[in-house]
Amino acid sequence: MLPPAFISLVYRDGGGVSFLMAFIFCLVAGITAWYPQRNEKGDLRAREGFLIVVLFWTVLASFSAIPLMLLETPNLSITDAFFESFSGLTTTGATILTQIDGLPHAVLWYRQQLQWLGGMGIIVLAVAILPMLGIGGMQLYRAETPGPVKDSKMTPRIADTAKHLWFIYVGLTVACTLSYWGAGMTMFDAICHAFSTIAIGGFSTHDLSMGYFQSPLINFICVFFLIIAGVNFALHFAVLNSKSLRAYFYDPEFKVFILIQLVLTLICFAVLMSYGIYQTGFEAFDQALFQAVSISTTAGFATTSFADWPTMLPILLIFASFIGGCAGSTGGGMKVVRVLLLYLQGVRELNKLVHPKAIFTIKLGKKALPNRVVEAIWGFFAAYAAVFVICMLLLLASGVDDITAFTAVAACLNNLGPGLGEVAANFAPLGDFSKWVLIVAMLFGRLEIFTLLVLFLPAFWRA
Amino acid sequence: MLPPAFISLVYRDGGGVSFLMAFIFCLVAGITAWYPQRNEKGDLRAREGFLIVVLFWTVLASFSAIPLMLLETPNLSITDAFFESFSGLTTTGATILTQIDGLPHAVLWYRQQLQWLGGMGIIVLAVAILPMLGIGGMQLYRAETPGPVKDSKMTPRIADTAKHLWFIYVGLTVACTLSYWGAGMTMFDAICHAFSTIAIGGFSTHDLSMGYFQSPLINFICVFFLIIAGVNFALHFAVLNSKSLRAYFYDPEFKVFILIQLVLTLICFAVLMSYGIYQTGFEAFDQALFQAVSISTTAGFATTSFADWPTMLPILLIFASFIGGCAGSTGGGMKVVRVLLLYLQGVRELNKLVHPKAIFTIKLGKKALPNRVVEAIWGFFAAYAAVFVICMLLLLASGVDDITAFTAVAACLNNLGPGLGEVAANFAPLGDFSKWVLIVAMLFGRLEIFTLLVLFLPAFWRA
Ligand SMILES: [K+]
Ligand SMILES: [K+]
Repeated sequence: MLPPAFISLVYRDGGGVSFLMAFIFCLVAGITAWYPQRNEKGDLRAREGFLIVVLFWTVLASFSAIPLMLLETPNLSITDAFFESFSGLTTTGATILTQIDGLPHAVLWYRQQLQWLGGMGIIVLAVAILPMLGIGGMQLYRAETPGPVKDSKMTPRIADTAKHLWFIYVGLTVACTLSYWGAGMTMFDAICHAFSTIAIGGFSTHDLSMGYFQSPLINFICVFFLIIAGVNFALHFAVLNSKSLRAYFYDPEFKVFILIQLVLTLICFAVLMSYGIYQTGFEAFDQALFQAVSISTTAGFATTSFADWPTMLPILLIFASFIGGCAGSTGGGMKVVRVLLLYLQGVRELNKLVHPKAIFTIKLGKKALPNRVVEAIWGFFAAYAAVFVICMLLLLASGVDDITAFTAVAACLNNLGPGLGEVAANFAPLGDFSKWVLIVAMLFGRLEIFTLLVLFLPAFWRA
Repeated sequence: MLPPAFISLVYRDGGGVSFLMAFIFCLVAGITAWYPQRNEKGDLRAREGFLIVVLFWTVLASFSAIPLMLLETPNLSITDAFFESFSGLTTTGATILTQIDGLPHAVLWYRQQLQWLGGMGIIVLAVAILPMLGIGGMQLYRAETPGPVKDSKMTPRIADTAKHLWFIYVGLTVACTLSYWGAGMTMFDAICHAFSTIAIGGFSTHDLSMGYFQSPLINFICVFFLIIAGVNFALHFAVLNSKSLRAYFYDPEFKVFILIQLVLTLICFAVLMSYGIYQTGFEAFDQALFQAVSISTTAGFATTSFADWPTMLPILLIFASFIGGCAGSTGGGMKVVRVLLLYLQGVRELNKLVHPKAIFTIKLGKKALPNRVVEAIWGFFAAYAAVFVICMLLLLASGVDDITAFTAVAACLNNLGPGLGEVAANFAPLGDFSKWVLIVAMLFGRLEIFTLLVLFLPAFWRA
């Protein structure tokens, strides 16, 4: 909270005081909570792991909401402050703010910084913690994929893993900032958008989002870094370590991820051309590429209102956001590797029907998958669907229309950001109850359902 | 096709000739196809089983479309005739007809009879054939549930099983007819509606469907027989055989099925009361019970336009139709037992997270389930979702709006009948392309996805 206070000082546009006050409050609260326990140490058990992850995210996001509540411009309700804070830290990027361009620089910076810090948390969560906890088949990554150290095992201690990954994360942010700046953004906008690009967050400093810049070059830079940020960071580490790009092309998830982006871009381009929505083929391609990648990686940046695109394109892209980014990336959704495994299992079922006595194993690349991983992924899929249906019914019950409810829940559960219908631009039109449901949906999505769901199990508290 | 020709003779309202002509055509075509193969016999292999089931349904429904094409009133296009015929035989009950009350009696009878015959086919398919083929976990029923013979194994030969089940099916139809007749329907209406009730089809002889009769007693009779028809017919057989109702209460699927009906009715009742939609509590309860059971068993009869009910009720009931009836019933959807197993597996996953080293087995009643069955059900679930998404995108691509596309596909894939939006009353507003997509969706739903999907596998044709 100190950087936005500093920003406020630089731009002299007010709003710095609330960040300072909130900082002092958090410092005091943090020390009070930490002080009595400062001497406790010990091994973490899985059960405590879940609790710590959930508490970490909720407490951090709740504290982060404080400066937003204290602000005078914009004057946010408690619900709205929490919504914006959770949306930032979970890198969802759904906003309740309107007229963003008029906000103080400190607030703008703060929102972008929330996303960037959220992205840092997600990387460590997804690469180091969830595989340890065995969430939704992610034990797959425990020691099996190319990891940050040479013997292809993850650095055992989380802190060490985190250091390596954050190095890549910061490096990418710097590269992205410089690219945006070089392409014509102000340094402030360049840093802010690099924050939300690498975090696949989708917050912007302008109401028109990336469309404000009207620059195909900036769009392309954004697409380039979104794709990089949508790839497993452990894979990036392996590539850096081996000093060869080969690891990318051996990774099945990476290949499918790229294929999805290509297919979506081509479908969007073909439909946009046949409906003659844009003047030139180049413009149509630019928009198709940008929106396809922005929505399907769950960034949620906009250049144009894809909600107004013809026929099935809006829903197609919303559906694509269910797939989302790769595991171990800052992207949301169910993750490419899980959908890939569901597909492989589906094909195996069909093959078993034709050859009932043959034994088929599911292979990812060259490795056969243990049944345990496949089972866990099925459980994940069903739980995802169940949480989706319940959240959507709750929104409908509070009076939201069908398409808004469907896409609002998809946008928050997939950590995407914008939806269709009433929430195509922002979430301000929704009521407080709906916003709280969506806050919970964001958290469910970001914590990969099970981390949060397990806390609802009576056995969790008994054990 | 002879009964409707006869009906036409009785009511002297035209339309009989086309049924006679179509009958002669089918007779000739059938003999021509059968004659060269009349001496071939041999064991059925699984692969041939799939082909026969799919061919049986498509050929029968195509032939059944012929009289509808030949009719002068209504004058149907080829697409519409196929849609109506497939909708009838798959017991979907979606119609492209408007102003049903004015149609000749022969046509009305014919549509109801299609549903009834379709129901007969489904019972045999679901109780005897799919378990043998091992579709979507239904091998579970191969020799495990209480079956029609005393040693709790299914009568091995399909023809024998069919005879027993059809006896129950015809008996229920007679009982339902007499009840409707006693409650005030004409004998024609009573038979016609008994046909579509026991088949969980949903076709009616009136535009207002069951709402035409404005009788709570008829509504209640309909609910009663829908619930009976929504239960596994093998379970009915076991009860008849043991002359005790005990088998029902030992069956986990039955218990969950009843629970779902109760919960949905209560939710609908509570919301309808709180919004004051109906004059009296009795009327609200009558409507809540009728619509909840009618939609969630996938019958699709209407008394009132539930599409206009407040808040989440329409979508809640559409979601409930995804669960549908019990396996081995005439109901559609994914079937209660599958959803129950997905739920149990989800809970097992959560328990495994808390106790990573413990071994949990999934039990249905007192029986532990083999992993093979659970896997097959997961595959079914994913394939169901994939077919749903693809059909919905195809409808959207042809220009249908979001909510219509979503509910039209749900209504056809779940063999439900009515949707929301443009297809709340009938499917006439849709284009030909959409109708063909939905015809395929009905067939996918009725053949439990895999029976049809396996034909798309190259290995199927190579083997
Ligand atoms: K996002
Ligand atoms: K139906």
